Amino acid sequence: MLINCVAYENGAKLADIPVEDISEYISRAGCFVWVALSDATPEELAEMQKEFDLHPLAVEDAQHGHQRPKVEEYGDSLFVVMHLIEPSTDDEGAHSVNVGEVNVFVGKNYVLSVRNRSQQGFLGVRERCEREPDLLRNGAGFVLYALMDAVVDRYFPVIDALEVELESIEQQIFAQGGAARDKIKQLYDLKRRSLTLKRAVAPLVEAAGKLHGGRVPQICVGTQEYFRDVGDHLVRINGSIDAVRDTIATAVQVNLSMVTIEESEVTKRLAAWASIFAVCTAFAGIWGMNFEHMPELKFRYGYAMALGLIVSTCGYLYYRFRRVGWL
Amino acid sequence: MLINCVAYENGAKLADIPVEDISEYISRAGCFVWVALSDATPEELAEMQKEFDLHPLAVEDAQHGHQRPKVEEYGDSLFVVMHLIEPSTDDEGAHSVNVGEVNVFVGKNYVLSVRNRSQQGFLGVRERCEREPDLLRNGAGFVLYALMDAVVDRYFPVIDALEVELESIEQQIFAQGGAARDKIKQLYDLKRRSLTLKRAVAPLVEAAGKLHGGRVPQICVGTQEYFRDVGDHLVRINGSIDAVRDTIATAVQVNLSMVTIEESEVTKRLAAWASIFAVCTAFAGIWGMNFEHMPELKFRYGYAMALGLIVSTCGYLYYRFRRVGWL
Amino acid sequence: MLINCVAYENGAKLADIPVEDISEYISRAGCFVWVALSDATPEELAEMQKEFDLHPLAVEDAQHGHQRPKVEEYGDSLFVVMHLIEPSTDDEGAHSVNVGEVNVFVGKNYVLSVRNRSQQGFLGVRERCEREPDLLRNGAGFVLYALMDAVVDRYFPVIDALEVELESIEQQIFAQGGAARDKIKQLYDLKRRSLTLKRAVAPLVEAAGKLHGGRVPQICVGTQEYFRDVGDHLVRINGSIDAVRDTIATAVQVNLSMVTIEESEVTKRLAAWASIFAVCTAFAGIWGMNFEHMPELKFRYGYAMALGLIVSTCGYLYYRFRRVGWL
Amino acid sequence: MLINCVAYENGAKLADIPVEDISEYISRAGCFVWVALSDATPEELAEMQKEFDLHPLAVEDAQHGHQRPKVEEYGDSLFVVMHLIEPSTDDEGAHSVNVGEVNVFVGKNYVLSVRNRSQQGFLGVRERCEREPDLLRNGAGFVLYALMDAVVDRYFPVIDALEVELESIEQQIFAQGGAARDKIKQLYDLKRRSLTLKRAVAPLVEAAGKLHGGRVPQICVGTQEYFRDVGDHLVRINGSIDAVRDTIATAVQVNLSMVTIEESEVTKRLAAWASIFAVCTAFAGIWGMNFEHMPELKFRYGYAMALGLIVSTCGYLYYRFRRVGWL
Amino acid sequence: MLINCVAYENGAKLADIPVEDISEYISRAGCFVWVALSDATPEELAEMQKEFDLHPLAVEDAQHGHQRPKVEEYGDSLFVVMHLIEPSTDDEGAHSVNVGEVNVFVGKNYVLSVRNRSQQGFLGVRERCEREPDLLRNGAGFVLYALMDAVVDRYFPVIDALEVELESIEQQIFAQGGAARDKIKQLYDLKRRSLTLKRAVAPLVEAAGKLHGGRVPQICVGTQEYFRDVGDHLVRINGSIDAVRDTIATAVQVNLSMVTIEESEVTKRLAAWASIFAVCTAFAGIWGMNFEHMPELKFRYGYAMALGLIVSTCGYLYYRFRRVGWL
Repeated sequence: MLINCVAYENGAKLADIPVEDISEYISRAGCFVWVALSDATPEELAEMQKEFDLHPLAVEDAQHGHQRPKVEEYGDSLFVVMHLIEPSTDDEGAHSVNVGEVNVFVGKNYVLSVRNRSQQGFLGVRERCEREPDLLRNGAGFVLYALMDAVVDRYFPVIDALEVELESIEQQIFAQGGAARDKIKQLYDLKRRSLTLKRAVAPLVEAAGKLHGGRVPQICVGTQEYFRDVGDHLVRINGSIDAVRDTIATAVQVNLSMVTIEESEVTKRLAAWASIFAVCTAFAGIWGMNFEHMPELKFRYGYAMALGLIVSTCGYLYYRFRRVGWL
Repeated sequence: MLINCVAYENGAKLADIPVEDISEYISRAGCFVWVALSDATPEELAEMQKEFDLHPLAVEDAQHGHQRPKVEEYGDSLFVVMHLIEPSTDDEGAHSVNVGEVNVFVGKNYVLSVRNRSQQGFLGVRERCEREPDLLRNGAGFVLYALMDAVVDRYFPVIDALEVELESIEQQIFAQGGAARDKIKQLYDLKRRSLTLKRAVAPLVEAAGKLHGGRVPQICVGTQEYFRDVGDHLVRINGSIDAVRDTIATAVQVNLSMVTIEESEVTKRLAAWASIFAVCTAFAGIWGMNFEHMPELKFRYGYAMALGLIVSTCGYLYYRFRRVGWL
Repeated sequence: MLINCVAYENGAKLADIPVEDISEYISRAGCFVWVALSDATPEELAEMQKEFDLHPLAVEDAQHGHQRPKVEEYGDSLFVVMHLIEPSTDDEGAHSVNVGEVNVFVGKNYVLSVRNRSQQGFLGVRERCEREPDLLRNGAGFVLYALMDAVVDRYFPVIDALEVELESIEQQIFAQGGAARDKIKQLYDLKRRSLTLKRAVAPLVEAAGKLHGGRVPQICVGTQEYFRDVGDHLVRINGSIDAVRDTIATAVQVNLSMVTIEESEVTKRLAAWASIFAVCTAFAGIWGMNFEHMPELKFRYGYAMALGLIVSTCGYLYYRFRRVGWL
Repeated sequence: MLINCVAYENGAKLADIPVEDISEYISRAGCFVWVALSDATPEELAEMQKEFDLHPLAVEDAQHGHQRPKVEEYGDSLFVVMHLIEPSTDDEGAHSVNVGEVNVFVGKNYVLSVRNRSQQGFLGVRERCEREPDLLRNGAGFVLYALMDAVVDRYFPVIDALEVELESIEQQIFAQGGAARDKIKQLYDLKRRSLTLKRAVAPLVEAAGKLHGGRVPQICVGTQEYFRDVGDHLVRINGSIDAVRDTIATAVQVNLSMVTIEESEVTKRLAAWASIFAVCTAFAGIWGMNFEHMPELKFRYGYAMALGLIVSTCGYLYYRFRRVGWL
Repeated sequence: MLINCVAYENGAKLADIPVEDISEYISRAGCFVWVALSDATPEELAEMQKEFDLHPLAVEDAQHGHQRPKVEEYGDSLFVVMHLIEPSTDDEGAHSVNVGEVNVFVGKNYVLSVRNRSQQGFLGVRERCEREPDLLRNGAGFVLYALMDAVVDRYFPVIDALEVELESIEQQIFAQGGAARDKIKQLYDLKRRSLTLKRAVAPLVEAAGKLHGGRVPQICVGTQEYFRDVGDHLVRINGSIDAVRDTIATAVQVNLSMVTIEESEVTKRLAAWASIFAVCTAFAGIWGMNFEHMPELKFRYGYAMALGLIVSTCGYLYYRFRRVGWL
């Protein structure tokens, strides 16, 4: 679906143009065209390929989808794939993340973005660019930066949410008596989501590194500091993800420790009560024997003494177990 | 076993040729020969070695088999080894993977592929190449690309199947009361298969990197973007394998946690019931003692009171255990 | 908030100058200006940007805060971000670390430091620099070194405190009968704090490496050995953090082992006592049976013999369990 | 002990020569001397050092032994250390590996191999070389290749044996009721042996890399493809070792899981039987009380009813436990 | 404390010289001075700094101590820090390691070694050097080698001791019934000591690499093969440490497995005995009931039959448990 197709000159919007005029505009010097598609059909992509003379392998990737994030040079043009991470909550309150994709084809005087399986548009990016003609004058390279920056900025709330969730689980881990099962499940879910985010960010860190420092593609010359900034954000997010993952790993282990500790405490309590009652039952059993000559059975206060002995023995045991912390 | 032996000129099929004419055709300019063998005998390999003037070490590797995936340069020619991964299910429904191997010898004007221990042929690749003479005109390098692409494309369903299987195990892990033993076994099997796949893919990632970017073998010049595409697919698969392996590791740990948690719950339940019955037995034991002077034994409603006391104590305990979640 | 704003010439303080004169002073040869801000408002940063002609991306980073430690070159100037780690103890005695941030903009003849969310100032650094005019003559590069050195020196007590705390936990782990739960919690807290420290130090190690060895920014030429010294301190701290983290990981595992061992000991003791009492109860139960013809019940010393048998059997069991170490 | 000492010219054996003539032969052009020692005495080494003019540090290493595998250049000559891994089985059937060592000194026209603490000789290598004069004409470099190839080829059966053993343990792990203790011990032994092999292979991978690709020692020029082949074998073995080690790590974890699962099952069974008997004992205890007014005791079929109640309750419990899989 | 201060010329000792003459001697061509200090005071260091014109940062490091091992170039001179590892045993037989430090300043014609917190001197090194004037003629670089070699050689017995200790623990792990608690503690101690050693060796491996291969400091030119030898020893020790650490990690895990297995066995035994006695008690309980009409109670051999039934049931259970290995 075509979102929009606009020609720019000297950083200012020239006009919304029909798709078939694209090749005409991009042949003018100092002019560039910025097209946005969403969930493009093969036909739309084929048309774009013709207008912009895109490389067949890049178009194939865009059409096939499910690429890993990357930056590829095809001659003078760039093909950039980024993941769009959107947290979602299902009806039962379970958190998950939806992974969309944006493919950006950038040439000397055109930018084509194709967004797939994602709710979030890039209209805001276009508006912001149009408000800053000084920067937009940098051409297609700057538009690529603006798109990357927008995508990367949307990762921040996702990782922040993971961190908040992790902290809330942590607090529960050390709170006694919670449902260990649920905590494990939550940690596992968190791990999975952090992995999804990791797979969006880590390859992009490396790919973005090609756009600044050392030899950079012609398109990025002059805007390298902007790309370094994006790269820096990515490294930061990547670091946060790694920290979250590291902490999750420890939390899983700690949770297991807590379960084992709790089990150990239950075992001790079980052992303590079992001992107390076993003593009681053993005494009662002895005086329940049917020997004829058991003098204490005849005593006036035999029963009271027996009860006293049983109660005091059990009481003493209780006191002892209490002191060593088993009860 | 010879599958076929065809000469090509300018991207078009010239003719099926007999093996002994190979050396003649490959001396013609603009002409190349593409031979496919399957489970070749030493004699066939020796003949090929003579016709194509192959390096003895490469031939030895092909004959010996069980090589790790690699790309080796012998002068102007290339020797490529790739694993063919075929999932299989035995009679008892246990999944496993069969590892075949394809050895490709590529020179300026010949391609020789030797397929071992695998059911899957490459006839489709040849057909597709012959349908695109424009690309086939690129010569032996393009054929190598087409073969690598076909091999790598066959990895995708394998890793997809692993992911699907892993997800199904995951759902079982958190379902209460399943057979922990089976889950562990499945995870272990999954781990092994992912390792097999990993060993097919990881070395190939590195090896494929030699065919694009920086200095590439003469044969690949002009088709580097195609090899980069193959390399990119490999990196993607490799990433997926790593993700699967990472998730399996966590799943094993989580499964152990679930078992420990379940054991802990059983211990609690055991402790609770043991307490209840111990109390009951202890009371009964006391009134079963044979002291002469136990006034309550003479009471009209002594027995009823005793039963009442026992039942209400046990009931109270039951209620308490219920509240703390042990029962 | 402006802390101070001083012009220096030939290593000696020239004068406290008003902010609006900065641009005048930095245009004089051999003269440099050193400004310190604390929790700067956007307006203050905007003013500084104008006076020093700072790069907008760097200013944006400083304003936004929460950057990861880094050293970035913008043309001839440097932008350095460092974390300020301040240990703090809350009312309940729980340890935590407060992460502040200092952003340093360094140009040929100016240094601007912006400190955020931190109690610790850098007045001491300025005083020390002013006492050593020989070194201060090196200009802005030396001031950057002095600031970095001060920040890094403040990491040492933090890591030392972690090491001391870890050692104290270690001693508790092997002391029998402690509260395993607390130890786990402490280790987990320690892990988190070491992670915070790690995230302050590790990126800085890499970043500081750019300031000595190989090509260094123009500003650092002539003071490279000082920057190497800072880098060396960072590597040392990083090594200590890694050692602490490694030890924590082992300690968590060891603690779990200790819990399991303790549980195992409790299980053994439980088993031992259960056996002893079960024997006692079983004997008593047998002589409590109501058969008419149980000759021993009529014996004069039947009861005494029964008691003797019970006690000696239990005693023997006790002795056996004692010997195998279960009791 | 001198094994043999032979002079070669143009790939053909010239003569067995006495040690004292070595220096004479190696001064002839086109002629090289190949000496093999086994468990050499310091005197023998000193003589060789004099004849071949070996570097003192290399001789010291050879004499001292217990070096890690390495390839060192001393001027134009090479000093190569490799481990010889020999599996052995002691009287009790426990597997272990014996680590021998071979030191090879290679110069322009000599090869000296010193074998220590190993049963396996290299006579076969010499014979094979002598049968292929075309290859042997390459001189000392080719002999080095032949020796390395022989050593590396002997690693294959060792790693194969480890893999077979691992697979047999794996099958036992999932077989119920085996001796967990033995499996752990076997896995641990396997781990140790794989570590020994790893330490033989991993450094050699790196060292062998110096003999092909990029700048290679003069001695290896012209035989680089052979050394690449050896290097490739080493990488393959290294990959197999890593896979074995990875699988062992998982197997240890899985074995622990299996033990925990089995314990959990035993706990459940224990809990089930304990409940059943506790119910039985509690009922019996109640009717064993000595209250005067317990009407059911007087019933004609009181006893039968009691037995019936006890049996049916226990039976019902048994059925329930059976259904939930605890029994 | 000054140990000695000697001038050398042409590899031979010239004279013991007073400290104040140092600067005079080092200005003579072909002459170098070798000074050894032990636990130097700030004043001594300041004097040395003046005599040798040492860099203030290096002197500061030496004075402050607790540096990590490193090799730093200051212009033409080198500053080397190495750890001295001395195993010690406290009164209770607990092993620990004492970490001393040696700082070496090396210039074109001087060597200054400062030893801190260590009992071991380097007199032997000086003697050995003086006995080999041919080598000592290489000057300050050779002395640096001799010192490094001596330090590194002292690491070997430390790592050997760790290996021996580890092996002794291993044997205990698989011996049944040992004190798991002690083994864990020993492994933990071993881990800590290996970490200390690791931190002494690992940075030195990297640092020593700067002294041979590629561009080396002027001082080391001509003695590179000696430094490579030291580097090789370090790599070997480092490998051994890594192997020890790897094995410890597995041993901790295996020990935990053994504890769990033992607990599982105890649980089984407990379950078995509990069942046997529960059966016995249940039977006894039934015949202890007070029903009036329990015909078997009147039987002549009722008691004998009851006992027989109880004993044979228990005996059968015992036999069954024995067979499945629970008893």
